[in-house]
Amino acid sequence: MSPANSRDRELRERAAAVIPGGMYGHQSVGLLPDDYPQFFERGEGAHLWDADGNRYLDYMCAYGPNLFGYAHPEIDAAFVRQLEKGDTLTGPTGLMVELAEALTRMVSHADWAIFCKNGTDATTMALTTARAHTKRRIVIRAKGAYHGAIPWCTPRPAGVIESDRAFQVFCDYNDVGSLEAAVAEAGDDLAAIFAAPFKHDAFIDQAEPDPAYARRARELADRTGALLIVDEVRAGFRLSRDCSWSRIGVQPDLSTWGKCVANGHALSVMLGNDKARAAAASIYVTGSFWFQGATMAAALETLRLVRDTDYLERMTALSETLRKGLDDRAKAAGFGFRQTGPGVMPLFLFDDDPDLRKGFCWSSEMLSRGVYVHPWHNMFLCAAMTEADIAATLDAAEGAFAALKRQVRDLSPVEKLAFLSAGAR
Amino acid sequence: MSPANSRDRELRERAAAVIPGGMYGHQSVGLLPDDYPQFFERGEGAHLWDADGNRYLDYMCAYGPNLFGYAHPEIDAAFVRQLEKGDTLTGPTGLMVELAEALTRMVSHADWAIFCKNGTDATTMALTTARAHTKRRIVIRAKGAYHGAIPWCTPRPAGVIESDRAFQVFCDYNDVGSLEAAVAEAGDDLAAIFAAPFKHDAFIDQAEPDPAYARRARELADRTGALLIVDEVRAGFRLSRDCSWSRIGVQPDLSTWGKCVANGHALSVMLGNDKARAAAASIYVTGSFWFQGATMAAALETLRLVRDTDYLERMTALSETLRKGLDDRAKAAGFGFRQTGPGVMPLFLFDDDPDLRKGFCWSSEMLSRGVYVHPWHNMFLCAAMTEADIAATLDAAEGAFAALKRQVRDLSPVEKLAFLSAGAR
Repeated sequence: MSPANSRDRELRERAAAVIPGGMYGHQSVGLLPDDYPQFFERGEGAHLWDADGNRYLDYMCAYGPNLFGYAHPEIDAAFVRQLEKGDTLTGPTGLMVELAEALTRMVSHADWAIFCKNGTDATTMALTTARAHTKRRIVIRAKGAYHGAIPWCTPRPAGVIESDRAFQVFCDYNDVGSLEAAVAEAGDDLAAIFAAPFKHDAFIDQAEPDPAYARRARELADRTGALLIVDEVRAGFRLSRDCSWSRIGVQPDLSTWGKCVANGHALSVMLGNDKARAAAASIYVTGSFWFQGATMAAALETLRLVRDTDYLERMTALSETLRKGLDDRAKAAGFGFRQTGPGVMPLFLFDDDPDLRKGFCWSSEMLSRGVYVHPWHNMFLCAAMTEADIAATLDAAEGAFAALKRQVRDLSPVEKLAFLSAGAR
Repeated sequence: MSPANSRDRELRERAAAVIPGGMYGHQSVGLLPDDYPQFFERGEGAHLWDADGNRYLDYMCAYGPNLFGYAHPEIDAAFVRQLEKGDTLTGPTGLMVELAEALTRMVSHADWAIFCKNGTDATTMALTTARAHTKRRIVIRAKGAYHGAIPWCTPRPAGVIESDRAFQVFCDYNDVGSLEAAVAEAGDDLAAIFAAPFKHDAFIDQAEPDPAYARRARELADRTGALLIVDEVRAGFRLSRDCSWSRIGVQPDLSTWGKCVANGHALSVMLGNDKARAAAASIYVTGSFWFQGATMAAALETLRLVRDTDYLERMTALSETLRKGLDDRAKAAGFGFRQTGPGVMPLFLFDDDPDLRKGFCWSSEMLSRGVYVHPWHNMFLCAAMTEADIAATLDAAEGAFAALKRQVRDLSPVEKLAFLSAGAR
């Protein structure tokens, strides 16, 4: 049973006329099952309502920004109070200083902060800061890792020219030898080593960071004078109240944050240590809305909740219940079902499913049971989820596995994902 | 008499510890007179209050975003209503479609819209779209023109490497011969011609666009197949309810908008024509907060005011009163005082003032009289200003010119601007 979707269809038709391709970017449903909605109208806590009024328990959390629940009463009240006083003004408010103080107290490696709007702003500033600090050019990044969507890093090459990607060397995440080879290739021109806190590429299994890889990245940065940058935009505050790699004892020089730092209000951040301070002060970076007081008020309230509540322990415990429950139900139904990455940011893939036809079918069955999961991108838990939500998810999953079992022999290839099996051949 | 500033001083000291250089970007007061405040706490209509509670009539309007007045009741009410329903969700709301429809109805050349957060996002997307459309590389821009703050365009070179600026050719704004030479230099590799709607560089006189230059840019783009891009981020909706160059009969292929399109809420836009639609659909661009419903609700309300009120005619009339009144008072005091650019986005410079010591003194005198003006950047009028505000400005100016006259022989050089007179020599 597919949910009612007449309003969504109407909006898609109108969008096709006034938005190129009808939609763009990571929230496009172009590569999702056809019954997934494109447009939403409401969010509250852990739930979303699409444009047709269908309600979902949302495991995407806006692709990360929703950490404490949509329309969080205290965070949004702090936002609105400051909006009434002053938001985008001719200078920052004192909240910018308070927020920089709060973040540098919370994140071990950080001595200072610079605020911006997009995650891409933060990663690009980090690249520029590293080049200014070292007076060198090359950045090492892991193949397939996402660090933003402008020409130097965007995953699709249309409109990108060769010079946009100059002075980049690629390694394999978690492969120490590959990292060492990349550092050797960079020679005396190495400015920075970029790293995601864990491997969270789309379409493939996720992987926790190998502590040996993280430590070697730190050592190689120290030996060469390059800066180590951990890109926390996606994972920040879901794995730790500190930089994620502090869990394995490795501190970066720079870290980049975004998505959930103001629980959905537009804010991203570059944090850095004293070594990189002069370089960060030397670059010219700015934006029309980078000093918004209301967003910073929301971030301060978000950080208060990070600091003073057990959100992380609760989310982690729920994620363990979810993982075990899904594992049991997949096994009972006879499916090889891989749940990879941290429990609070899981990715689900079926064995023997190169074009994701099983994943698409199962995800659609979850959607029709009121649970929004993603068939090929990592998901996100939020602190507004409850044990009852996890139980409802597991009930839906039991039904979805059973439904998949009934249909699995007759599933058609997923044409829009044919590029995946082509690539695998 | 300098305003009380103890709270500002305290915040600056704290900022120096946790923000590189204490502040960054276009809102830094590093190159402003020492008595200018860095931190603000409130905005309402045309007025700002700094962190010490001093009130100013604000001619910067947050460097543009404030078009209808700070904390505008109807715009912010629309924002908050949508915030309570849903802002950053797992997909856009239907408001995205409505907003794209509203903009394409309002802006003559536009058949479609893509939304983002920073002005720089929009200009970078325009560059990428032009390269995707033409499969060519070179962009022509005017020397000194500001189009954003990432490596391909940021005005300060720290951290920028040569490849970031590859395939850019520079011309002189309003100089047809220089533009033609740039097009010749680009040869068969020309992707785009960028243009500001008027010359609004910092530190020098502004200039209206020469219609012959605008028309020639259009002709050269047509002849070569390159795209013509007008960067409206700063000027949008202050000169016209359409793209600014529609006033001189020239339509671009792409235009970029930001700052005031949601009256201070974080939103920017790339608009384009059907010729560029397929290319715009082919590039990968996105951001965590690009689909915020509340910001789009604020933009729809802002556009309603643009469309249905006489804000533009009122602002323009006030700007004429201001220009004439300042001119009269400067003349009466015996100063050569140049007001350049459109009345609603004026820049003030004194004759025979290479290091701006007169401008700094006069601006400080205005500040101490409750009027915030900028000594070297274009300013902005807003629709919340009244005839009484202009009269108060002229009274302040009369006092400031008199005060400058008393001090002018004894002014010290402005050390922080010494680079200006060095450059002029």
